[in-house]
Amino acid sequence: MIDLIKSRHSYRGSFQPQPVPRADLIKILEAGLAAPSGCNKQTTSLIAVDDPQVLAQIWDVMTAPISHTAPALIAVLAQKIVSYRDKTYYMQDYSAAIENMLLAIKALGYESCWVEGQVTEDPDMVQAINGILHIPADYHLVCLLPVGIATDEVKLVAKKPFEERAWFNGFMKKD
Amino acid sequence: MIDLIKSRHSYRGSFQPQPVPRADLIKILEAGLAAPSGCNKQTTSLIAVDDPQVLAQIWDVMTAPISHTAPALIAVLAQKIVSYRDKTYYMQDYSAAIENMLLAIKALGYESCWVEGQVTEDPDMVQAINGILHIPADYHLVCLLPVGIATDEVKLVAKKPFEERAWFNGFMKKD
Repeated sequence: MIDLIKSRHSYRGSFQPQPVPRADLIKILEAGLAAPSGCNKQTTSLIAVDDPQVLAQIWDVMTAPISHTAPALIAVLAQKIVSYRDKTYYMQDYSAAIENMLLAIKALGYESCWVEGQVTEDPDMVQAINGILHIPADYHLVCLLPVGIATDEVKLVAKKPFEERAWFNGFMKKD
Repeated sequence: MIDLIKSRHSYRGSFQPQPVPRADLIKILEAGLAAPSGCNKQTTSLIAVDDPQVLAQIWDVMTAPISHTAPALIAVLAQKIVSYRDKTYYMQDYSAAIENMLLAIKALGYESCWVEGQVTEDPDMVQAINGILHIPADYHLVCLLPVGIATDEVKLVAKKPFEERAWFNGFMKKD
């Protein structure tokens, strides 16, 4: 399990053409829905897209760097509702759901990448995808995850060493 | 893996007294650090607390609903730095790291709970913990995770059915 967590990396390459079986997509969606949410408000919803005609419509409007060879795509939707008092936790909620899905995707032998900013900062594309998927105004598209079998090698990014980010019993303390 | 994701639930009860071995804490921290981060900025840092004297100091100021029987506690710290242009992703970054740690905690036989709002909305407690752990001003305590073996049963919360939160090829579409 922990090995799998460590083996997950963002993949931005192209995908093999074979479709993702619906049974696998369901497992990935279930993993997303199993994430915790602030005050159990379950603010995250998901749309898996595997219909080639719907995918083609999305590729037509896609400006984010997602390979148009992806045989499936998961759209992550957030309801920006208050959990208690004036607090919202939808951002934490969908982030935990995305991480669960990235791990499930990897566990099932696929690759993916968390594509968020390059989606949300293009309101025209968001509006077009909202139209294609019939997403109502109170559900906000916050992330797209491609799903498929990689054709290329997964490139690793350099990460800071453990000692620069994790400590024991005090900031920067090694024991 | 997906079974493990589904078996994770928030635990708010008390803990057995045996300490969490340092090797397990390292695995949990490594799982957290393995999470993706916006533009690979690695904005999340972690402090594991397992020294009974430091824990006692924290319990003295603890107002969040975390059992004082927890033999270990992980403090999650965020650097609120810009990832690109004016965008920050530290909230997504630490949420993915927390979810990874919750899964690692479960995989190793422990229980935990994502305690965030009840920490961050009490600035006096945050300031006191900052002092105990020597956390500098540019690192923000955003979450505490207790770690230990549960004494009680883990209570499940009701979740909406799959069909109310996940669809295929369009909003509310079942195929």
